Amino acid sequence: MAVYTEVSDEELAAFLAGYDIGELLSFKGIAEGVENTNYYVQTEAGAFILTLYEKRVAARDLPFFLGLMEHLAERGLPAPTPVRDRKGRVLQELAGRPAALVSFRDGLWVRRPRPSHCALVGRSLARMHLAAADFAPRRANALSLAGWRELFATIGEDAERVAPGLAALIKDELSFLAGAWPKGLPEGVIHADLFPDNVFFLGEEVSGLIDFYFACNDLLAYDVAICLNAWCFEAPKEFNITKAKALLRAYGEVRPLTRAEYDSLPILARGAALRFLLTRVHDWLHTPADALVRPHDPLAYLERLRFHQSVASARDYGLDPQ
Amino acid sequence: MAVYTEVSDEELAAFLAGYDIGELLSFKGIAEGVENTNYYVQTEAGAFILTLYEKRVAARDLPFFLGLMEHLAERGLPAPTPVRDRKGRVLQELAGRPAALVSFRDGLWVRRPRPSHCALVGRSLARMHLAAADFAPRRANALSLAGWRELFATIGEDAERVAPGLAALIKDELSFLAGAWPKGLPEGVIHADLFPDNVFFLGEEVSGLIDFYFACNDLLAYDVAICLNAWCFEAPKEFNITKAKALLRAYGEVRPLTRAEYDSLPILARGAALRFLLTRVHDWLHTPADALVRPHDPLAYLERLRFHQSVASARDYGLDPQ
Repeated sequence: MAVYTEVSDEELAAFLAGYDIGELLSFKGIAEGVENTNYYVQTEAGAFILTLYEKRVAARDLPFFLGLMEHLAERGLPAPTPVRDRKGRVLQELAGRPAALVSFRDGLWVRRPRPSHCALVGRSLARMHLAAADFAPRRANALSLAGWRELFATIGEDAERVAPGLAALIKDELSFLAGAWPKGLPEGVIHADLFPDNVFFLGEEVSGLIDFYFACNDLLAYDVAICLNAWCFEAPKEFNITKAKALLRAYGEVRPLTRAEYDSLPILARGAALRFLLTRVHDWLHTPADALVRPHDPLAYLERLRFHQSVASARDYGLDPQ
Repeated sequence: MAVYTEVSDEELAAFLAGYDIGELLSFKGIAEGVENTNYYVQTEAGAFILTLYEKRVAARDLPFFLGLMEHLAERGLPAPTPVRDRKGRVLQELAGRPAALVSFRDGLWVRRPRPSHCALVGRSLARMHLAAADFAPRRANALSLAGWRELFATIGEDAERVAPGLAALIKDELSFLAGAWPKGLPEGVIHADLFPDNVFFLGEEVSGLIDFYFACNDLLAYDVAICLNAWCFEAPKEFNITKAKALLRAYGEVRPLTRAEYDSLPILARGAALRFLLTRVHDWLHTPADALVRPHDPLAYLERLRFHQSVASARDYGLDPQ
């Protein structure tokens, strides 16, 4: 949560002059979002989010992300809609950063999701998978098996500083997953980071799906496995099967999992836990002490990985085969 | 800029249930304000700022600050209006902190004020001084002569770590100001921290005066001297007399300075520079490396202090005696 890049009065005025959205009424840095700088922008035409993309987002990927958001919004998904300037452009440059203005989505993210929220997020995820089926651009998942290996190569024995035995555990898990990772499952565009702070609720509806900056083409069921990790644990070790059942059932009502996807869920969940374990270990080791953002605790994902290692079949997630 | 205190879903729901402001539509941490945690709150009834007061604000002072904001707003000043709950209360407790909900003020603070902004802020400051004249509660200025001495006692020779010779310079300045500080000037409620980020503009009007959490009873002209320091320097050493003239003239059109105030301006400006130098040196020395907020550079105020030390009379600020 931070504003990494300040925008001067002149830069902001010049930027907004390119849009047909009336006079500026308010402009405030938002303390949400770990990767990029976000400003709340209010004009005579409504409310917007202005995002300045920081180093971790590759500029070449932005047309994919912004195109996907527009594609989903056009199909009725509550993704932020990129706003086009007077020349029809979405992607801009501001204060030396790539930047884009998108519509503001009402709603609140829940700090402690209940099973009803998990059901709603399962349904939204399936709708997103279906709505993105005809989205033509492609982006490989930089954080799948090969990416995990590269990331671990930069970590190595330093993982021991996070927890004794962690380096060996990750190495073994990488070997296991390299052999066990499923092939031939349905693919498509996945969100790949659908954590609670990226889903807004208004009453009993999902009013916003945000932060598509990890979206990519990969196994659809892997996105479900990420959500199992992100939404269905009470504490590092406590798997809430009621929440998982709600999430998986609601997903399946919109897009039934194939039998092969169902059978692969435990492996995919291990992969998802390892993916977040690795990025968190990396951030934990590389965040300078004076950084504006405190890194997440990696150990929550070590415990989740251990949980999934102990799972016998997808039935342990509360879902019967379909 | 930080969110120091997180609010849980349940705490937020219980808090808002006490108000008659409709359903919650949005809730976002704001990356502005150094001392407290601020959330942008949107409900069916409009937009608000929810402030959770962190340790540096004394809870016993909050009725003064909130009462002052209400007093000023009732008199047409663009201060945030504290919102009363169903029981008529302004001051609440939320997530273990004192908290209050106030109206959201449209507008933008200017990163680089122009002379026209300085004139507008001078006029607003004078209007505030007049509007607060019948505000009965009193609060002593904890950051005047005695407070500076106490603060310096906690710093002492550590000031040398900020700049060589700084400890002696501060000591000398404290002695000088103790003898030279004016007595008998007009007193009243001052803002005491009216920096550019605490003033919002919409077009050619001041649309918001915020952050009254240093407000207190003191010499009115000392508030003017704080604004000279805060608004009229281009860089640490470069005094912009055009801006100062604009600020002082506009102030005087609403509330003319007495001759004694005019004559005291250089001393008051030295005091104001020393006040911010001291708090910045203190923060510089005491901010842990992993803090969410980076301290301001103290040396800008050392340079301003030196500038005011070199001033012969208030004429050097661009203002003729009145």
